[in-house]
Amino acid sequence: MPPSTSDRYATPARPSENATVASRPSARVTVTDGFWAERRRINARVSIAQGPDRLTEAGNLRNLRRAADGETSGYEGVPFMDTDVHKWLEAAAWQLGDPTTDPAQAAELTDRIGEFARLLADAQQPSGYLNSYYQVARPEVPHFQELRWGHELYTAGHLIQAAVAHHRSTGDRALLDVATRLADHLGETFGPEGSGRPIDSVDGHPEIETALVELARETGDSRHVELAGYFLGRYGGAFPTRGTKGPARPGYCQDHVPLREAPAVTGHAVRQLYLLAGAADVATETGEAELRATAERLWEDMASRQSYLTGGVGAHHTDEGFGHPYELPNERAYAETCAAIAAVQFGWRMALLTGEARYSDLAERTLYNAVLCGVSLDGDTYLYDNPLHVRDGHADQEGLRPRRTPWFTCACCPPNLMRLLASLPGYLASTSADGNTLQIHQYATGTVTAPVAGAEAALRVTTDYPWDGRIALAVEATGAAPWTLALRVPHWSADNWALLVNGAEPAATAWRYDDGWLLLHRSWASGDTVELTLDLAPRFVRADPRVDAARGCVAVERGPLVYCVEGVDLPALPEGLGLDDLVVDTAAGIGISERDDLPGGVTGLTLAGRVRARPTPDAHAPWWPYRSTTTAPAEPEGEPLTLTAVPYYAWANREVSPMRVWLPSAAG
Amino acid sequence: MPPSTSDRYATPARPSENATVASRPSARVTVTDGFWAERRRINARVSIAQGPDRLTEAGNLRNLRRAADGETSGYEGVPFMDTDVHKWLEAAAWQLGDPTTDPAQAAELTDRIGEFARLLADAQQPSGYLNSYYQVARPEVPHFQELRWGHELYTAGHLIQAAVAHHRSTGDRALLDVATRLADHLGETFGPEGSGRPIDSVDGHPEIETALVELARETGDSRHVELAGYFLGRYGGAFPTRGTKGPARPGYCQDHVPLREAPAVTGHAVRQLYLLAGAADVATETGEAELRATAERLWEDMASRQSYLTGGVGAHHTDEGFGHPYELPNERAYAETCAAIAAVQFGWRMALLTGEARYSDLAERTLYNAVLCGVSLDGDTYLYDNPLHVRDGHADQEGLRPRRTPWFTCACCPPNLMRLLASLPGYLASTSADGNTLQIHQYATGTVTAPVAGAEAALRVTTDYPWDGRIALAVEATGAAPWTLALRVPHWSADNWALLVNGAEPAATAWRYDDGWLLLHRSWASGDTVELTLDLAPRFVRADPRVDAARGCVAVERGPLVYCVEGVDLPALPEGLGLDDLVVDTAAGIGISERDDLPGGVTGLTLAGRVRARPTPDAHAPWWPYRSTTTAPAEPEGEPLTLTAVPYYAWANREVSPMRVWLPSAAG
Repeated sequence: MPPSTSDRYATPARPSENATVASRPSARVTVTDGFWAERRRINARVSIAQGPDRLTEAGNLRNLRRAADGETSGYEGVPFMDTDVHKWLEAAAWQLGDPTTDPAQAAELTDRIGEFARLLADAQQPSGYLNSYYQVARPEVPHFQELRWGHELYTAGHLIQAAVAHHRSTGDRALLDVATRLADHLGETFGPEGSGRPIDSVDGHPEIETALVELARETGDSRHVELAGYFLGRYGGAFPTRGTKGPARPGYCQDHVPLREAPAVTGHAVRQLYLLAGAADVATETGEAELRATAERLWEDMASRQSYLTGGVGAHHTDEGFGHPYELPNERAYAETCAAIAAVQFGWRMALLTGEARYSDLAERTLYNAVLCGVSLDGDTYLYDNPLHVRDGHADQEGLRPRRTPWFTCACCPPNLMRLLASLPGYLASTSADGNTLQIHQYATGTVTAPVAGAEAALRVTTDYPWDGRIALAVEATGAAPWTLALRVPHWSADNWALLVNGAEPAATAWRYDDGWLLLHRSWASGDTVELTLDLAPRFVRADPRVDAARGCVAVERGPLVYCVEGVDLPALPEGLGLDDLVVDTAAGIGISERDDLPGGVTGLTLAGRVRARPTPDAHAPWWPYRSTTTAPAEPEGEPLTLTAVPYYAWANREVSPMRVWLPSAAG
Repeated sequence: MPPSTSDRYATPARPSENATVASRPSARVTVTDGFWAERRRINARVSIAQGPDRLTEAGNLRNLRRAADGETSGYEGVPFMDTDVHKWLEAAAWQLGDPTTDPAQAAELTDRIGEFARLLADAQQPSGYLNSYYQVARPEVPHFQELRWGHELYTAGHLIQAAVAHHRSTGDRALLDVATRLADHLGETFGPEGSGRPIDSVDGHPEIETALVELARETGDSRHVELAGYFLGRYGGAFPTRGTKGPARPGYCQDHVPLREAPAVTGHAVRQLYLLAGAADVATETGEAELRATAERLWEDMASRQSYLTGGVGAHHTDEGFGHPYELPNERAYAETCAAIAAVQFGWRMALLTGEARYSDLAERTLYNAVLCGVSLDGDTYLYDNPLHVRDGHADQEGLRPRRTPWFTCACCPPNLMRLLASLPGYLASTSADGNTLQIHQYATGTVTAPVAGAEAALRVTTDYPWDGRIALAVEATGAAPWTLALRVPHWSADNWALLVNGAEPAATAWRYDDGWLLLHRSWASGDTVELTLDLAPRFVRADPRVDAARGCVAVERGPLVYCVEGVDLPALPEGLGLDDLVVDTAAGIGISERDDLPGGVTGLTLAGRVRARPTPDAHAPWWPYRSTTTAPAEPEGEPLTLTAVPYYAWANREVSPMRVWLPSAAG
């Protein structure tokens, strides 16, 4: 069966035929080897494979069983426990949609999905309602009466997304039927005043919006898009104001202002970004310019004023939320793994909607750093929040020690990582809306096939990226009509890349660079080769001076990877000194480490550091860390030390020790 | 009636006769004019005077009335609403103990205290138990079964402290009888296993410990000290572990390790510091060296690694807690007003216990900055958390805008400010344990009388401190035997102060400087004068380089005051630029502002600032705030601007605008 007619290669965010988009996700990608193949193999064989056991241990499946049995007591865990099941189902479904999945595991996943789908169908009420928390723990509460905190629509959204993934991957309607009944029930329940539908409100946690649009795409029922659009418009006064700080404030769930008027991203980062993914989806389907402009404006605000170097977002622990502009504390970077995942999902929708390279440029950074740090190299344990700095002496203070953990009381992140990594091939390539360009957004060894210029084209991609900058592409099939191959050039390589076509530098007229896209238009033939080499020279990076947390510091990057220095890699230092006493000598440059004992076999980098000259304490107040002085701190003295930096995604895979992404620079 | 036998001049923390202390609070101080007199006048006539109305509006008094009437429904507010009443009572009682209090207000306060004391007596159960939350809202819960979160002992502690203050100030036993019945009930209830008392545990919120010691001092019943010592020893495994982060972790309430083994301050800052005040009190009464060493060690950790420049403590919003060493984010400084108050209370106890000047040195800073910022200049509104930085663009993000507020849902801070300011004269002077030295810890215009060298000495202090550095002291009464006048010299003035005795520089043998104390030993005569002039030259201050949040920055101080720059005082800047785009040129020095329109008539300072050169964004990623570069940021160009700085305590008394304490320095 040719790939073009297979249901495998299912991908998230499939705009409908008449949607207003610049690009379409019609490319089918396999990732067969290299960096992402390894991460995805571990995701499938460890993380996803463990899922059912973890969902059993944590009680999620028992809750659904109780709901199916009509029990009204014994509920375990947080109100949205069902969503962990739904996200695992979505992950398993995308994994089934990947032709590289091991057949034995595919069979196992098929069985488990079927089993869980039956459980969900059994638990679903005749009305279509399905939520084990309200059915088991709170049967006395009328449905959809506690929308600010109850997560009923959020939970429904994750079920719908799982169902869409399952149907796209397999054609099986078992979950889709449950989801459609639930969505129809929502459609009968929610609507504006005067619509005849009883409830005019929305969920405190966005998610239903993007789910409904995807359901409409899968089923062709555009009423779901209308309902999503209604929900989007409902934020901005949906809930009574309770306070001005933390989760009580309206902005926590983006309810402070109508979405289209929001000047900036704010509040709970996952809520904000799921909402924006929904906005991008609705704008895609309706073609509404104002909604698209809102999504663009808020993406820009997120990227330019509220993002960590890793692509992580969310500066506050208290409300898991965005901070003020340029407020990006490193020790308390919340940078929730789920928020990074949501940023990738939002970014991909914007990439399709606009065709602009910047969305996938940021998404690449987010994937390699802010997402991937959330799961251990062995796929077994997770981080929920992702600081960019762990201090010397943190062990003296009880608590707050970042540790990778097998599962969480609120276990949103682990199955979210599973579903993103399982669906990753869906984020790697697209075709232009006119059908004449094949766009490669992210680089991974494997195959890309897509309809281009009226025929099926197939490319083989071979690369050791991100460890090596060379990306080799070979045309394995093509039609006769000319078409354009668009290769995304990351911004850090835009001034320095090399291109070979069939082994030779192409003429200047044979290619064009357009705002992040390298465009090669020609008549392709089977056997043609293209080699793009990106600039993997390690580099120092500085922050906008308004990022106070990075003042006087540099970070180190190589390719898409942000690096960090971990205490476990430090050379011996004088007694009482640690990572926070070092400065980096940028003039000495950055080397490639020869160590082969780094976690996951990563390529390390080497830096020249020195012990900072500690200022003499005030003789009259040696107990006070501040002192009167008009002069700048003294330059460091003493011999340089060699520091080893490892990719940020690989940190905390050895003993927990201090860590820094931003390193004070000896040059200020 | 001579002052020495009057019950007026009541002060907190009065060690018993046989306590092991270096100093005793036997000085009686009035503050009649100048800075603190004005702040205390507003505290009495606005803040304290408004208290009963605020406690009525918020429901606190209704809760107690319901308890008195035996009602078991209708409770309003958080579980520890009673403590706001208790703290107001304590404030009113200290105010009554101040002979400068307006007689009409004193009569009004006496009536109100009597009325509230009758209400409390009516609400008290026959057992001695008294807590309106458990009596009205949770009558079905056995007492002291929810100690981790119930605040029963914390609430009892505040009642006991109010009763001690009331009895010390007036000799009236109305509150003391209620408190003693309650304390006796606690003594019958709590004890170690095998003691025959039914409950072997402690409160999740320390406070009872210091209260019980003070009650023992007031009543002479040393069993209360024993109970306090038992409670202190109970932390470190009192409660089941529930989590590793935030309020769920044991360290949140200092339960992670036995107190005497704690390596560092941690967890909820108010809990930690109330606990340490109790530790200092118990060490004072028992003479236990290990407990004293613990208090010293943790004070040093707090001061040297976990204090903001303002003296504020608590770096985390999530758990209102201490952060990791040197983790002191400016925008998210929690620096709760109550924590600063607790630090002053703890510090005073350490000052008495050890006789060391450093405790009052830090307390002065904390009082003028971290405490006083918590109440508006007009005494009408309050701040709960006290950031050191409010960003440009903060108004674009909904919520998290610091605003002074008339009262809070959890209104711990306002009455805490009231009681501290009402008792402030009690923190200003002491006598040495040998009775031969009169120690002046803080400077304020007024009188100080104390028994020294076997006779009553009286000093008149006249000063416009902190606006002027001259402090004039005149001996108005003294015995014939020589004694030592000890004047505390703040660390910032220790290398530069001037002294006149009877108008002339004293001989080098006439004085001695000893670690923060300027000691003048002589035979004093009535009419003798001493003039100490402290160095009020404004100064730049830098932080230990491990304080990442202040890297490359300076702050400005003058005397005990920390200054800040507020957006409302900025000169006109080019469009789109704001406070966060400025750097300070330290070489240009600091001037005294001639503006007379600053809030509260404060003395402003002037600085030379420049607009920072904004780095050119990466042409390939103008949406990204980071860029590859090996060079340090460019020096600012353009004309210098004059910036006005105001004392930090006076900020946010005009329209809410950006604010910075730490200002980037042009010199790095």
